[in-house]
Amino acid sequence: MSLEAVLEKIDQDLDSALARLTELLKIPSISTDPAYHADCEAAAAWLVRDLESLGVAASVRKTPGKPMVVGHAGDTGPHLMFYGHYDVQPVDPLNLWHRDPFDPAIEETPAGKVIRGRGSSDDKGQLMTFVEACRAWKAVHGTLPCRLTFFFEGEEESGSPSLVPFLKENAQEFRTDIALICDTGLFDRDTPAITTMLRGLLGEEITITGPDKDLHSGMYGGPAINPIRVLSGIIASLHDSDGRVTVPGFYEGVPELTAELRAQWEGLGFDAAGFLGDVDLSEPAGEAGRSVLEMIWARPTCEVNGIWGGYTGDGFKTVLPSKASAKISFRLVGTQDPLKIRESFREMVRGMLPPDCAVEFHDHGASPASVMATDNPAFEQARVALTGEWPKPAAFIGSGGSIPIAGYFKSILGVDSMLIGFGREDDQIHSPNEKYDLRSFHMGIRSWARVLDALTK
Amino acid sequence: MSLEAVLEKIDQDLDSALARLTELLKIPSISTDPAYHADCEAAAAWLVRDLESLGVAASVRKTPGKPMVVGHAGDTGPHLMFYGHYDVQPVDPLNLWHRDPFDPAIEETPAGKVIRGRGSSDDKGQLMTFVEACRAWKAVHGTLPCRLTFFFEGEEESGSPSLVPFLKENAQEFRTDIALICDTGLFDRDTPAITTMLRGLLGEEITITGPDKDLHSGMYGGPAINPIRVLSGIIASLHDSDGRVTVPGFYEGVPELTAELRAQWEGLGFDAAGFLGDVDLSEPAGEAGRSVLEMIWARPTCEVNGIWGGYTGDGFKTVLPSKASAKISFRLVGTQDPLKIRESFREMVRGMLPPDCAVEFHDHGASPASVMATDNPAFEQARVALTGEWPKPAAFIGSGGSIPIAGYFKSILGVDSMLIGFGREDDQIHSPNEKYDLRSFHMGIRSWARVLDALTK
Repeated sequence: MSLEAVLEKIDQDLDSALARLTELLKIPSISTDPAYHADCEAAAAWLVRDLESLGVAASVRKTPGKPMVVGHAGDTGPHLMFYGHYDVQPVDPLNLWHRDPFDPAIEETPAGKVIRGRGSSDDKGQLMTFVEACRAWKAVHGTLPCRLTFFFEGEEESGSPSLVPFLKENAQEFRTDIALICDTGLFDRDTPAITTMLRGLLGEEITITGPDKDLHSGMYGGPAINPIRVLSGIIASLHDSDGRVTVPGFYEGVPELTAELRAQWEGLGFDAAGFLGDVDLSEPAGEAGRSVLEMIWARPTCEVNGIWGGYTGDGFKTVLPSKASAKISFRLVGTQDPLKIRESFREMVRGMLPPDCAVEFHDHGASPASVMATDNPAFEQARVALTGEWPKPAAFIGSGGSIPIAGYFKSILGVDSMLIGFGREDDQIHSPNEKYDLRSFHMGIRSWARVLDALTK
Repeated sequence: MSLEAVLEKIDQDLDSALARLTELLKIPSISTDPAYHADCEAAAAWLVRDLESLGVAASVRKTPGKPMVVGHAGDTGPHLMFYGHYDVQPVDPLNLWHRDPFDPAIEETPAGKVIRGRGSSDDKGQLMTFVEACRAWKAVHGTLPCRLTFFFEGEEESGSPSLVPFLKENAQEFRTDIALICDTGLFDRDTPAITTMLRGLLGEEITITGPDKDLHSGMYGGPAINPIRVLSGIIASLHDSDGRVTVPGFYEGVPELTAELRAQWEGLGFDAAGFLGDVDLSEPAGEAGRSVLEMIWARPTCEVNGIWGGYTGDGFKTVLPSKASAKISFRLVGTQDPLKIRESFREMVRGMLPPDCAVEFHDHGASPASVMATDNPAFEQARVALTGEWPKPAAFIGSGGSIPIAGYFKSILGVDSMLIGFGREDDQIHSPNEKYDLRSFHMGIRSWARVLDALTK
């Protein structure tokens, strides 16, 4: 009965919830680019004010990087922690956006209304689903449903350098019964999901140096080693002809799917052709003999995320460059050890250097894969609660993305995480024209009300 | 006797010649970047005014690209054409310059005084050696030494798109007895050179497209093809393990050196270790079994001049990009056919594309190699004249660079070219901190006075 009142309040309050989200989306809190540092601080301050409006004792907590937002409320019932991140991805290439990424608006699309703007899905829109559920609960009940700790990070899109030290220094404050994380997706439009497997992420930047300065390719072309050629050779050798990663020892700790999980996933009816067709591809390019779903949820990868060297402007410049660089990332599964793989990768690259070439490595973070503790009863309670809101039953799924926070909560705090989110595959997170379906936002808020109700009964 | 007076006038006038060069160097006439179009026009106008001060009937001649500067003077004696280019290379990476590239200054260095700035050597400083020799001649004699045509181009650093049509339309005006081109170097500090072999240049830009938009490497990493990986594989396959270019048919028309020329070049005492050591390299990286001098002067190459794709800013972005691009150039020798090689290269690239990938090619110009007509008596007259100015006898040499103009003068006008220049290998043309030795500038002006005297006696 009281859950019904909360859900009704959520429905009535949707327009003002959207107005609040719009305010937050207008703050260009790009954490990876130092030019936006003040905007990250502004987003943190906005969240503190918003939590305070719910009666939460919230504050901005300084770190050497972007600030954390932490809030505590309530003193009875189970102690739940909610995690989200207020930082967003860069917006380039800006010319592919149909509107200013930080001037969000509601748009009608053939698939329904969306809110368009950087961070609308990843993760400001998702984060606010939980906050709005709490707001409605408080409006109906006068109090929040239980003991709650809010924890919003501002470095998720830039490797979370401050996260582990902060959690270690403040471990006592975050030792809750379970952590709820809203940074994942629905399985499909009608099927909510609890993500129980997340890939880890290892980020490396490599710079190859040949000659000590840029040269004229006429004067030196031939005898002088070209670092772009060296870098290309290294990248080309990172996969074999079956699409497997060639870094020595890379597949140590990569488990095969159990027959049970394989059967469950096959039962989901994933539309691999549609998934690839959405981005104008017709066949999977990954490891031979693996399904698309397995490639994304349960297999490790190596991708080049960026490459640059020499003259890249308009026209032509016959330079033989001194340096060439690439950003390379590995998605990890099972018990693959990111630090061991980093060392093996670096050793492999060093071994491929021709004479007169040097390599520099820059570390962009390393986190192992996460496998959730689905035997915790909260998982089944939440699954039933979600099933109450959506047309189809909730599923336990994997995710190709990397949300290392769940691993840290477990290893540093001893706290299990439950990942529930409402993003869609076509949200274009990390791409131009990011959006969040209003249906995700609205039913997401309602879903959290149901989950809070189920976990605090 | 009168040559002595001209040389003396050159010595007296050196400071004001440097002041004029400095004025010209201050104009940022970067032809490859549309942002500097007006500066290219300003450099052309400056040259017209300067030629007019010598009594030359000069004008700016419009083209669809950057303007040409053409001047005519005199009506007796042999008809000589002088060619140079007023456009310069881009200046990036700007942070590696020790001063503003377009605020030139005289600097003391351990090897003597230099003038530092973009274009000081390539080609404004070189171009002005001829103009200043004419100025001194005119001051002493009251007239120029013979019939002279001045021809200054503004697109040499960007593929000379307007050059061939302009020469064809105005062929009669440029049908001279010989062309003098100042855009090459000394053999070494004490040895002047007439360059008799120049490599050709074929420029290609390729863009590989995989998915139709940038993707999240977590969500799509694995099944989605990564165009950076495809591009790297193509680049890595352009050379075999002996450093030979693998484009089918590439070595058709590449001659072996004659025993005579090989002996002459060996006699020059080229310091290959020093040449490589100057740029922090210790061993040649080109074709196995070829000397460094042969690699640069007489062998064809393939270089990657630029590469870009994905996220290249600070920090890390886990994007799986839609596109990756590279600028690739080939230096050509002998009778290699640039258009045939372009087609073969494109065919090879198309053949390497995996499913779901597309490639676009962008043409950045194609010119064959040039071999000069050293049996023209002007070559021996000029060789003797240069030997009179410098400590060591002048040599006939090759050049790794590409100055297609000589080939066009021959094929379109039927005019032989003689390439005489005073650049040094450490001039850092096309690189940060370009400079021109004052010794090159001063003895270069004196050299042209001697050559003009020898050719008009």
